[in-house]
Amino acid sequence: MKTIKDYIVQNVRDTGPIELPFGTKQKIAAKDHVLTDYGQFETSVYFIQSGVVITTLLYREEQRILDFHFPESFCASYSSLLTATASDIRLTCYKDCVLEVVDYEELQRCYQTSLLANQLGRIATEQLYVTRVQREKELLTMTAEQRYESLLKKNPGLVRTIPIKDLSKYLGVRPESLSRIRRQ
Amino acid sequence: MKTIKDYIVQNVRDTGPIELPFGTKQKIAAKDHVLTDYGQFETSVYFIQSGVVITTLLYREEQRILDFHFPESFCASYSSLLTATASDIRLTCYKDCVLEVVDYEELQRCYQTSLLANQLGRIATEQLYVTRVQREKELLTMTAEQRYESLLKKNPGLVRTIPIKDLSKYLGVRPESLSRIRRQ
Repeated sequence: MKTIKDYIVQNVRDTGPIELPFGTKQKIAAKDHVLTDYGQFETSVYFIQSGVVITTLLYREEQRILDFHFPESFCASYSSLLTATASDIRLTCYKDCVLEVVDYEELQRCYQTSLLANQLGRIATEQLYVTRVQREKELLTMTAEQRYESLLKKNPGLVRTIPIKDLSKYLGVRPESLSRIRRQ
Repeated sequence: MKTIKDYIVQNVRDTGPIELPFGTKQKIAAKDHVLTDYGQFETSVYFIQSGVVITTLLYREEQRILDFHFPESFCASYSSLLTATASDIRLTCYKDCVLEVVDYEELQRCYQTSLLANQLGRIATEQLYVTRVQREKELLTMTAEQRYESLLKKNPGLVRTIPIKDLSKYLGVRPESLSRIRRQ
């Protein structure tokens, strides 16, 4: 299982010893455990060591899946962290998870003085940003069918393991439509 | 007209003298000037001192407006910068602009050692990220009418100065539908 230190070696700097400028705690959470709920103020950033986390949004009392988060990436209710408002998304463990947890208050203190903390924060945010832009472009320009194909190309493993009812919540189509698309 | 230094004082750190770790150039560009075109590799980051820049995306030979960028914010074809791929968006001066230009290669060199460069890069990316997430949520959950109302609330000045044909390209509705929404 990869750690935040491994993420740094792979994405931030690959030479010299790495001393994390903040503490982390390991959290083991079972499938369906809610990490952050609608209306809560986010206090942590999670690095997924194993498992899958989903972020959902309520839309007319229906859950829409914003994203699936996989090992070796960060997740949190970022908008809640960055704008200090109550979260309008929910983070749920979609499978049993092992998470490395960073306290955001401590991270912010590190941001005052630590080059490494800022490099890590910048690069992790850049990666999140690119993912979001990609998804926005797809929502603006692709049909559900094309978005399904794009997902299949990017993440064949995901498409195999995730039930059609959840995939359809992610793609924003009805399960019957997705079944039809799949058959084609 | 505000500069990148002013942005740093306002958003990054508000004490002590600020020495930019990279050089910047001022660029004066007329309305309709294309800063970065489809297929180009982005090489700069722009800080808007005055004017408005739009980013557009081609969708079935039609231009869709991804965003309007206003003074005191950064813009660039970020996905091109961050993934070193050809740009799939175009940046155009929507009005006459004065821009402060940062060379991305130089910025990347600064990211190796400069705390301030990384703090600036992190915070500017965080702000961009929050904006994108907001827009994605609106695309997923709001009707064109609600998105128009949300834009009106956030940016009444924009709605006043931008022609209905461009607003409709941003909202993803036909101009006639937008006129109808406006009358209501």
